[in-house]
Amino acid sequence: MKKLNIAIVGLGNIGSYLYKYLIKNKKILAEKNNCVPNIIYVSAKNKKRKRGIRISKKKWLNHYLEATTNKNVDLVIELVGGAEGVAKKLVFNALKNKKHVVTANKALIAKYGDQLAKIAESNKVNLEFEAAVCGGVPIIRSLKESLIANKIKKIYGIFNGTSNYILSSMDKENKSFLDVLTDAKKLGYAEANPKADLNGDDVSAKLKILSSLCFNSFLNKNIHVEGIKDIDKIDIINANTLGYKIKLLGFAELINKKIYQRVHPTMIKKTSYVASIDGVLNAVIINGEPVGQSIIQGEGAGPSATTSALVSDISSILRGNIKFPFSISGKKRKKLSYENISERFFSAYLRFDVTDKSGVLSNITSIFSNNNVSIKRLIQNPNKNKGTSSIVIITHISKDKSISKILKTINKKSYIKKKVKLIRIDEN
Amino acid sequence: MKKLNIAIVGLGNIGSYLYKYLIKNKKILAEKNNCVPNIIYVSAKNKKRKRGIRISKKKWLNHYLEATTNKNVDLVIELVGGAEGVAKKLVFNALKNKKHVVTANKALIAKYGDQLAKIAESNKVNLEFEAAVCGGVPIIRSLKESLIANKIKKIYGIFNGTSNYILSSMDKENKSFLDVLTDAKKLGYAEANPKADLNGDDVSAKLKILSSLCFNSFLNKNIHVEGIKDIDKIDIINANTLGYKIKLLGFAELINKKIYQRVHPTMIKKTSYVASIDGVLNAVIINGEPVGQSIIQGEGAGPSATTSALVSDISSILRGNIKFPFSISGKKRKKLSYENISERFFSAYLRFDVTDKSGVLSNITSIFSNNNVSIKRLIQNPNKNKGTSSIVIITHISKDKSISKILKTINKKSYIKKKVKLIRIDEN
Repeated sequence: MKKLNIAIVGLGNIGSYLYKYLIKNKKILAEKNNCVPNIIYVSAKNKKRKRGIRISKKKWLNHYLEATTNKNVDLVIELVGGAEGVAKKLVFNALKNKKHVVTANKALIAKYGDQLAKIAESNKVNLEFEAAVCGGVPIIRSLKESLIANKIKKIYGIFNGTSNYILSSMDKENKSFLDVLTDAKKLGYAEANPKADLNGDDVSAKLKILSSLCFNSFLNKNIHVEGIKDIDKIDIINANTLGYKIKLLGFAELINKKIYQRVHPTMIKKTSYVASIDGVLNAVIINGEPVGQSIIQGEGAGPSATTSALVSDISSILRGNIKFPFSISGKKRKKLSYENISERFFSAYLRFDVTDKSGVLSNITSIFSNNNVSIKRLIQNPNKNKGTSSIVIITHISKDKSISKILKTINKKSYIKKKVKLIRIDEN
Repeated sequence: MKKLNIAIVGLGNIGSYLYKYLIKNKKILAEKNNCVPNIIYVSAKNKKRKRGIRISKKKWLNHYLEATTNKNVDLVIELVGGAEGVAKKLVFNALKNKKHVVTANKALIAKYGDQLAKIAESNKVNLEFEAAVCGGVPIIRSLKESLIANKIKKIYGIFNGTSNYILSSMDKENKSFLDVLTDAKKLGYAEANPKADLNGDDVSAKLKILSSLCFNSFLNKNIHVEGIKDIDKIDIINANTLGYKIKLLGFAELINKKIYQRVHPTMIKKTSYVASIDGVLNAVIINGEPVGQSIIQGEGAGPSATTSALVSDISSILRGNIKFPFSISGKKRKKLSYENISERFFSAYLRFDVTDKSGVLSNITSIFSNNNVSIKRLIQNPNKNKGTSSIVIITHISKDKSISKILKTINKKSYIKKKVKLIRIDEN
């Protein structure tokens, strides 16, 4: 039987898990794919780290770049992470030297995916990155193969387990953002430095990759990104009162040949499917023609779920199935225009913490009216002891630019105690 | 660019939709798969039926079997349906003559899949049947490719849109089975003869195929099948009172190297994911190692969703990716033992319509006790006017055989006005 010689670079939690998996399941994978997955080399920063695996000395490369030059290597698996440095050098060199590449690196693909795909295509090797987006949720392969028939109009969902865990725990346990974040770190659901999870960057990278696949377009940086770090307990409580849940959602939509990419906390109906996704799960909803709406849900992260994704990529290469990294040749990918969301229309939740004095409410509502934004619902909760008041306004569907303008004006007012909170509402 | 010559046999709703789709999307499919999907022949029982498509005369075959013998045909798409007759002859002959086959025929694959796969394997052609199971839900390709890394322990879900539509409408609109069925026929959600949808046979065929793929085993007929036609409005009401919904679920599980396949109405917690799937949707839940739990949801039937599935199969063949029809070579598929569910343990909902007289309840409970089945909950609703009483019993988890024995004994009693209703409960 044929063999595919593999070098794994990066042996952290994921790399070690994958190594063990491939050793243990070599036979069944060979039987299913008619080709043996054969690990011949590994490389990692810290050779001596405890991994619970025995790796013979001759498998260790002296330098990670040898994986890209060694004649015996067919496939380089990059599990280093980060858009620059080692990972970047490794993947670029591997593809240039006609090695297949499997990577779990969303930052790298979101940034250099187009360039990398071009090299892969001209060198007729695979560049696979299922594990870069939503761990165990096989969304990349689904878009490239299972749902290949479809024109995708919209893809959205929960793409970050850490922030979803925090938001659903704040809701269920009635705790503050910081308390839940502390819990999440203890439980291993948040990293020591969870910045990219909380500020939306992680979702942003994933969404860029998905947009590109869905719409046969190049990667694009025009994306509106807000994270969850400003969500207060009071917003969660207000959402519940109004019949909503708050989720950090990513959306990519094709409207009149323009692509809109956005990541922001979103109020969605309590009874909607997305509202039911709690904890560290990921869920992706795809609206396609002719298939209608499809949903894929699963574990979004962790060594085991990620290994499932990596092995599906490895198997695809074992079967000898060369495909375009972004579903279609770089020559045929479209240069669609990516627009920012200022011209889009949303209904919005706005929370104003103000000094409780007469005239404030009428000033606020007059600013709405001056900007042609119509108010659907208004709730005022005065806190007499503190001399403050919390005003919640739900707008009718309005231009995003108009809402921004209102916020800019009102944030300057002396009666504003705290930056106005905006959460967009999605009624789907 | 390479071409793949296709013959479509069967031009009903699905065949016609697929024909139109392939004509319209020839270019993009060719670009994505590096090979042109080229329809050269068609065949259908009724040439003159209105299809809204123009097919040139020279494309019509004189006889459907010519699709299997014509030298120019590379791929035969079978959309005739049924396990025997035309469909069977067509697919067997096509594979024997080294043509690839794509089919949407679950009855054929559930019955003859093993034999067909053997021919396909020895002739090195594809036999693809994504469209046979759950229409637009790409469960076959997900099991064979996206989730290839996983040992599947359990697969279950809602595999029949018609019966799910009926059960959820009975629940939401508080209507009887027959009233909803009449509506469903008018709306096109149930066929004129919906027998296979209602008696569980449709789910049974799909589940057999899924079992075989999940557990790398041969197809097996040992399956417990109950449909939904005996579900009364009162059971739906009782389920709600008890915190459950009733769904027609299929389950395939691997427990101690034995496979259990079952299809039956099931009470599941109102708050569970499966309970939220209403209408004609299908949902498949997969418990795999290492991926954890994955869910795929989508439109289960109809020409558009089915075309999405067919095109994913066709694309796989366009890319030239020969795979084993059941994921692994027939030589490696296992002969696992399939057991019936009598030794399995379930909690059960039982409804007894009895004559309202003293001694009945104590007789019933004594029969439970004699069979070592412990009662968790009992509700008695007498109907004084009719002199009858409805007794609902929820058991603790008990051996299925013991429940059957109780039913057999009690059904013979003179105080029983109507066959006792059993609905198994799933607490997951």
